[in-house]
Amino acid sequence: MKKLLLTLVAACPLTVMAMQALPKSAEIPKDNKQTIEKINLGKSLYFDPRMSINGTISCNSCHNLMLGGEDQRSVSVGVNGQKGGRSAPTVWNSAFHTVQFWDGRAKSLEDQAVGPIGNPIEMGMPHFEMVIGRLKQIPGYVEMFEKAFGKDSISKDNIGKAIASFERTLIAGNSPFDKYMHGNKKAMTVQAQRGMKLVQEVGCVVCHAGANFNGENLKMGEGNFQKFPVFTDNDFVKKYNFMADTGRFDFTKNENDKHMWRVPTWRNIALTAPYFHNGSVRTLDEAVTVMAKVQLNLDLKDNQVSDIVAFLESLTGIFPKIDMPRLPPTPKTTLYDLN
Amino acid sequence: MKKLLLTLVAACPLTVMAMQALPKSAEIPKDNKQTIEKINLGKSLYFDPRMSINGTISCNSCHNLMLGGEDQRSVSVGVNGQKGGRSAPTVWNSAFHTVQFWDGRAKSLEDQAVGPIGNPIEMGMPHFEMVIGRLKQIPGYVEMFEKAFGKDSISKDNIGKAIASFERTLIAGNSPFDKYMHGNKKAMTVQAQRGMKLVQEVGCVVCHAGANFNGENLKMGEGNFQKFPVFTDNDFVKKYNFMADTGRFDFTKNENDKHMWRVPTWRNIALTAPYFHNGSVRTLDEAVTVMAKVQLNLDLKDNQVSDIVAFLESLTGIFPKIDMPRLPPTPKTTLYDLN
Repeated sequence: MKKLLLTLVAACPLTVMAMQALPKSAEIPKDNKQTIEKINLGKSLYFDPRMSINGTISCNSCHNLMLGGEDQRSVSVGVNGQKGGRSAPTVWNSAFHTVQFWDGRAKSLEDQAVGPIGNPIEMGMPHFEMVIGRLKQIPGYVEMFEKAFGKDSISKDNIGKAIASFERTLIAGNSPFDKYMHGNKKAMTVQAQRGMKLVQEVGCVVCHAGANFNGENLKMGEGNFQKFPVFTDNDFVKKYNFMADTGRFDFTKNENDKHMWRVPTWRNIALTAPYFHNGSVRTLDEAVTVMAKVQLNLDLKDNQVSDIVAFLESLTGIFPKIDMPRLPPTPKTTLYDLN
Repeated sequence: MKKLLLTLVAACPLTVMAMQALPKSAEIPKDNKQTIEKINLGKSLYFDPRMSINGTISCNSCHNLMLGGEDQRSVSVGVNGQKGGRSAPTVWNSAFHTVQFWDGRAKSLEDQAVGPIGNPIEMGMPHFEMVIGRLKQIPGYVEMFEKAFGKDSISKDNIGKAIASFERTLIAGNSPFDKYMHGNKKAMTVQAQRGMKLVQEVGCVVCHAGANFNGENLKMGEGNFQKFPVFTDNDFVKKYNFMADTGRFDFTKNENDKHMWRVPTWRNIALTAPYFHNGSVRTLDEAVTVMAKVQLNLDLKDNQVSDIVAFLESLTGIFPKIDMPRLPPTPKTTLYDLN
């Protein structure tokens, strides 16, 4: 495998081209055009804990926009203190992912957005009829759905469309790397530039390519899945329990998908510790060391790790300002079952 | 007791004066002057889940500014899914409360703000040294504390001062009632005006007086404590389990404080269901019915309940716009113990 990767790199003198600045906007699907009404509705739904069974969890609980778009926990915590099986991926720039979730089981943001609401260990709503019934009890939402989608339009599909529309506005680019790619060669430190060369030389960018560092020339709905870990005969695989989760196989039940994972983004990675699908690695330095060993069978030197980390830090973007939404009130009553 | 209350009301022909419009600003303590640096720091701390042991809970989790300043749950849920014993009071206009918590055990917002951080079933930090240690690991906070309080100033006291400074900006007045009190007699509906008279006639305002409807002419640190329930020989007391919690006695261990409670505000009450210290009553109509019975031994008629509810709805204020803070990042690492 190491040979294969090195061959691939050697065969591609233009791998530097595999890295791209982040576009200013993401692809908008034909059947879900962006409108300000949809975006505003999606934003309210995104922050609304009433979308969970006991009013505890909103999308933002685990994908916190005020932080790096996730929760800095190894795995997320859903309703009633239940722990999830995987670490929450960042929602920032998720519009540039062509498939969603660690195992890529959702082919669009629309599909992804409605998943956690009905997941018993995440937001815990037993069925979408209950979600819709609740929203219908909130006059402000009835009005917002009407403005966004027309009369009597509260539905699972439209909830997904609204949240996805909001998420497509969550773009954090304009990082030092992006400025560098746009011609400002001083935007990145010399160390970060060394790191940028190194990730090309050792082969990281074979998978972490493109503007979002998750694969090149991918169409929406088409995933870049890779095996992880590739090299299992090392201490890290055991220490961090990487084999416990079979990845995409869990969803497809196809033997070929065992330990296959969607390639995650590198953008804003300095803000999204801990790392890997199970959030088992606490620091970025260790994550780089581990990744080189288990994917490329390389033992990086400390200075190489530092250089790569400096490069990854240069991928921290500028986050747009967000007004806090006033969530439409539930007048004079509560929607939850009392404890 | 009923007689006493009615006598009190009868003796006060000017009880209408007991109601006041909300001032535009709250009293600022001499030892914690408001500065923009403190307010900004307090705002970040308020929204920061890294203030809890496992990154799950921020002040805003239970006192949600996007809703009515609380969480619409009967009791709040802290770290590891642990349930609290009492319903979260609203943070909106809390600066007009002279004591804090349901039992008034904190004499200032500064004291209150640091309480939940160390509470094992709320934010669960085992001691403040850990809180301070974490904040010191976040370069952005080191800088913010320095700007707000000077060099090396991260301390429990200053955390409380910063959060309190932010909370003093959380004023939601300018309700229909406030407009009415300022001379716009059309700001309240006729029904709400009937309700306003009724709460004076039946005696509610003996306790729910003043601009915040929690007592009149109170000094900061001086509470308005009342017994609840007063009349225990009715179905409500049992149904809603009102005797289980001994209130202020729990804190003082003084027999006279058994079932004594701080008088809660009426402001924005239409947004803060469910009701009472244990969040046992789901709707405002029922809360009014129950309150009349257990405090005044009155059986209100349905139309009286509706009128009072219409009045209480007229106390819903205008909420200021709030920019979402960008929380200072934890670069390349996580602060939490991994699960």
